[in-house]
Amino acid sequence: MLSLPLAHQMGGRHVLLVGCGAVGMTRVDKLVPTGCKLTVVAPEVDAGLAAYMPGGMEVAAGATWVNKGWEPGQVYRVARREFAAGDEGLEAFAFVLACVPAGGLGARVHALSHARGVQCNVADVPALCDFYFGSQCALGERGLQVLVSSNGAAPRLTALLRADIERRYAALDWDEMCGRLRALRERARALSTQAGLPAEEALRFRMDWMRQVTDAFGLEHCAAMDVERLAGLFGEMAAAAAAGRPRALPADLVSVYTESST
Amino acid sequence: MLSLPLAHQMGGRHVLLVGCGAVGMTRVDKLVPTGCKLTVVAPEVDAGLAAYMPGGMEVAAGATWVNKGWEPGQVYRVARREFAAGDEGLEAFAFVLACVPAGGLGARVHALSHARGVQCNVADVPALCDFYFGSQCALGERGLQVLVSSNGAAPRLTALLRADIERRYAALDWDEMCGRLRALRERARALSTQAGLPAEEALRFRMDWMRQVTDAFGLEHCAAMDVERLAGLFGEMAAAAAAGRPRALPADLVSVYTESST
Repeated sequence: MLSLPLAHQMGGRHVLLVGCGAVGMTRVDKLVPTGCKLTVVAPEVDAGLAAYMPGGMEVAAGATWVNKGWEPGQVYRVARREFAAGDEGLEAFAFVLACVPAGGLGARVHALSHARGVQCNVADVPALCDFYFGSQCALGERGLQVLVSSNGAAPRLTALLRADIERRYAALDWDEMCGRLRALRERARALSTQAGLPAEEALRFRMDWMRQVTDAFGLEHCAAMDVERLAGLFGEMAAAAAAGRPRALPADLVSVYTESST
Repeated sequence: MLSLPLAHQMGGRHVLLVGCGAVGMTRVDKLVPTGCKLTVVAPEVDAGLAAYMPGGMEVAAGATWVNKGWEPGQVYRVARREFAAGDEGLEAFAFVLACVPAGGLGARVHALSHARGVQCNVADVPALCDFYFGSQCALGERGLQVLVSSNGAAPRLTALLRADIERRYAALDWDEMCGRLRALRERARALSTQAGLPAEEALRFRMDWMRQVTDAFGLEHCAAMDVERLAGLFGEMAAAAAAGRPRALPADLVSVYTESST
């Protein structure tokens, strides 16, 4: 069976992490940058956790600390103690993760989470994983995220492919591409409602147009597309379509509508 | 903020899909192959749905049908009617998806799902999406799955990268690579417990060894690795490490332990 890869929007949502050693810390590094509210329950915590605490503060062994002035990018709660039944219900957790030594604790966390209908991942125990983290990389700072999963079958192979993708595509300016494509999409969305096409037709026209334009520019040229002039072209083509005289994209689209060539 | 990409194991878990036109059908195509139990609530259904119904059966307008002999790869329930409050609680749904025309229905499905703590995706309405599907591709039949996400910012860019990855890596034999790496991992796991290393050390030794070997073979050569002889090498190296005389991997590892070269 295939897995279902999904990109979750975690802003402000609660996540529970039980155990925060070296493996747990790799989870923290993936979770906190999503803007989620992370609760950590662990008697000992990796030194790296301090990077996500306000002022790099530390929580004393045995103590529980709640981040009253929580901001995205920070840990929300740290309880420096062993996991106890009920912790899985401290908040309405979207996900529960356990990174604990082999033994019964992982299975207990998993069972308690399931009893509340919360999906759970126990590191290194595939039978107790409702989801996998796979191998992941980011292209650009605010660009794309890539997840490679083998459904637990071959983690080293996913790591190899992830590394290859990272190497191969690192040189492209993903943030610039993302920014220009988003700007063009927003301009086209605004213009398509003004062009006089009925709502459903306007949507289809815009989607088709964006697809043809991005396919023409390709990964190589998107970072240099001239958004303003392309938006103008879109407006003309949408108006022509609304008037029943649809026009095709110019054959020299990429060379004419690339910024460096103007 | 970044998204949190996860690969969900959906075997036997319930999913609700509200609306099953052309867009809804793209969800069905992603969901049913995961082995989930899919409930479809929609007055009209795309003709493609029949491919996932036992014997290609159709459900009459207004009727509700439950698949009593459900098997992975089939739809679990079809209700040929409008969505009604309470449908979101027909089962303990892991996810709820709405693919419905613009209007209030998507927001209603989203609110009802959230009231039950279930994550929801309303197609084409980013503000009502707890998760995105991004652009996805599979490499091999039972090989890897790749998800590309821009966190909703640039869907066309994710589509371009997905297509490029598909093209670039299609020629490799992913199923063979997955199979050999899985076999080697299982052999090494069995052998490492026999070698006399303490449990935690055995785990670390095996992980390090697998990493070094797969890095050496790379994407290019994994499909031809000689699993049997590599397992033998692992056993020797684990025994040597247990005896306090650790050995390094041979410098000519890939040429010696590739099947065609034996």
